[in-house]
Amino acid sequence: MRILIDCLGSDLGFEEIIKGSLLALKEKSFTPVFYGKEEEIEKYLKNDNFSKIDYEIVDCTDEILNTDSPTIAIRRKKDSSMVKALKDLKNPENDGLISLGSTGALLAGATLIVGRIDGISRASLTSIIPGTKSKTIILDIGANVEVGEELLYEFYIMAKAYAISLGIENPTFQILNIGTEKGKGPDYLNRLYERLEKEEDGFRGFIESKDVLNTDTDVIITGGFAGNVLIKSIEGTAKTLMGLLKNAAYSNLKSKIGGLLLKDSLIEIKNMLDYKKYGSAPLLGSKKPVFKAHGRSDSTAVKNGILNLISFIEKDTIGNIEKIIEVKKNE
Amino acid sequence: MRILIDCLGSDLGFEEIIKGSLLALKEKSFTPVFYGKEEEIEKYLKNDNFSKIDYEIVDCTDEILNTDSPTIAIRRKKDSSMVKALKDLKNPENDGLISLGSTGALLAGATLIVGRIDGISRASLTSIIPGTKSKTIILDIGANVEVGEELLYEFYIMAKAYAISLGIENPTFQILNIGTEKGKGPDYLNRLYERLEKEEDGFRGFIESKDVLNTDTDVIITGGFAGNVLIKSIEGTAKTLMGLLKNAAYSNLKSKIGGLLLKDSLIEIKNMLDYKKYGSAPLLGSKKPVFKAHGRSDSTAVKNGILNLISFIEKDTIGNIEKIIEVKKNE
Repeated sequence: MRILIDCLGSDLGFEEIIKGSLLALKEKSFTPVFYGKEEEIEKYLKNDNFSKIDYEIVDCTDEILNTDSPTIAIRRKKDSSMVKALKDLKNPENDGLISLGSTGALLAGATLIVGRIDGISRASLTSIIPGTKSKTIILDIGANVEVGEELLYEFYIMAKAYAISLGIENPTFQILNIGTEKGKGPDYLNRLYERLEKEEDGFRGFIESKDVLNTDTDVIITGGFAGNVLIKSIEGTAKTLMGLLKNAAYSNLKSKIGGLLLKDSLIEIKNMLDYKKYGSAPLLGSKKPVFKAHGRSDSTAVKNGILNLISFIEKDTIGNIEKIIEVKKNE
Repeated sequence: MRILIDCLGSDLGFEEIIKGSLLALKEKSFTPVFYGKEEEIEKYLKNDNFSKIDYEIVDCTDEILNTDSPTIAIRRKKDSSMVKALKDLKNPENDGLISLGSTGALLAGATLIVGRIDGISRASLTSIIPGTKSKTIILDIGANVEVGEELLYEFYIMAKAYAISLGIENPTFQILNIGTEKGKGPDYLNRLYERLEKEEDGFRGFIESKDVLNTDTDVIITGGFAGNVLIKSIEGTAKTLMGLLKNAAYSNLKSKIGGLLLKDSLIEIKNMLDYKKYGSAPLLGSKKPVFKAHGRSDSTAVKNGILNLISFIEKDTIGNIEKIIEVKKNE
């Protein structure tokens, strides 16, 4: 299996990406193809006694930045690591791509260079929200800010295949809305509700944002704007609360002792709510596997990202999306 | 000043509403006009030695329920306390109305019976989010799920007048978006950005949901869907975290002691984040003052709601909205 690894775009430097790849290679066998500055990468690999492992480097002289306009960067920065890797991904011998770079550019590139699955009109972004009962896949989280019934229905199809690839046999679904009763919220969500009610045994109706952390539903379908607001407000509220607690625990001796005694539990809660630790997610809708990892991913997060990508490939998630689309078409 | 008080629709019973009105009367002089079951209210008032105070009761035989379809209920339940009060509000001698009943019905009624301010196309719902630096007005939080540039611009005008009525002399504004850079998110938000950048000195650009609790901006403008997702996910995350902390603090003796020592701080944080304690908010856009209080409001919350309504009237907030619209029209 050949995995294309974009070595530019990390906030922590390319070394974390190489280190993460080495860690992944200890658990799974694959051929990493590194896209980045060849000289630097070679030098680093030599120091790390990487010579025993089969790898390739594609030298890239340019880099797509987070400040670049996504579509323009994809069209013009032809020597960037991201564009080169996306182009090579089209070659049948290459199986998947992971990048820590600009989300917008990667999305634009997956659409413009790699192409979309037949029957899917937009690529979309997912995230996994940790919760008290189970993890929940959220789709979309920001790629598609203007949505309607059809697009959300496509998200449902893709999320279904993705959930199955994560080992969830009969995934359950809810639609994010501003109330749980049928009839609430925009019409297109109610039309989607009726459709899923008929077609999907695992459909459980609407969910409000306040219940997302306490649900055991596997997938929440939403537009990219609301999905983005949702995951970032969970992140922000958790961070704010933890900060307030920390301050409170330093306010006087009594609470200082209290804070120390509770410290382990606090760290546990903080880790539980850190959705970034899942670190990577597929760009669903791309014709070939493309994973986006967080720019701040350390080597462990990169390792997990690569292993998730490999599992996504092994479970033929894209083939499964195509199969579901085929079945729906004939219904 | 005559304040119309809808006595039905409380989750805690009409007594809390009467009690709250009595508390408000201790701080401000006004004539309460109670809409509800006359016999019950009279009986309760007699027990409470209310006879010294000038009040009126309008007997109502019907009640609008949260499960009713808002528009249908407003059209058909002509003997409900909410419909009767909304009709009477049109009478110039009456100054404002407060209700704990169905938000949807109150919104529909404010539009269909009371009417909208000239130049405002939709009534909208606000909430105040507590934060670590200051309170923030959020508009809209669920009344208008489908929005565009014009509607959000109206929200801005109404929020400006409302902020001033709350004593904020030169309010600052941000637009909720999925990124802070210009160009991010939907086009209509970027058009609004450009407009506010030109017209409003207090405009500070986009804000992401993760920063809402830590901003010192006075007003956040957003569509009703995202606004609703935002406030409910802050509520849900805070509740979940507090629950986890409580569980953690009971898990073993060490953390039990820790939890006890930190208890006061935890309660303080919980109260700080409880946006429901602000309890009431105006339906902005209505031609006359209509306040919605939470169905679970206790007497203190009802008291605060009435006092906020009176301040809204005294500061002529609706007149100020009309003035701003006039100025914008002539620009």
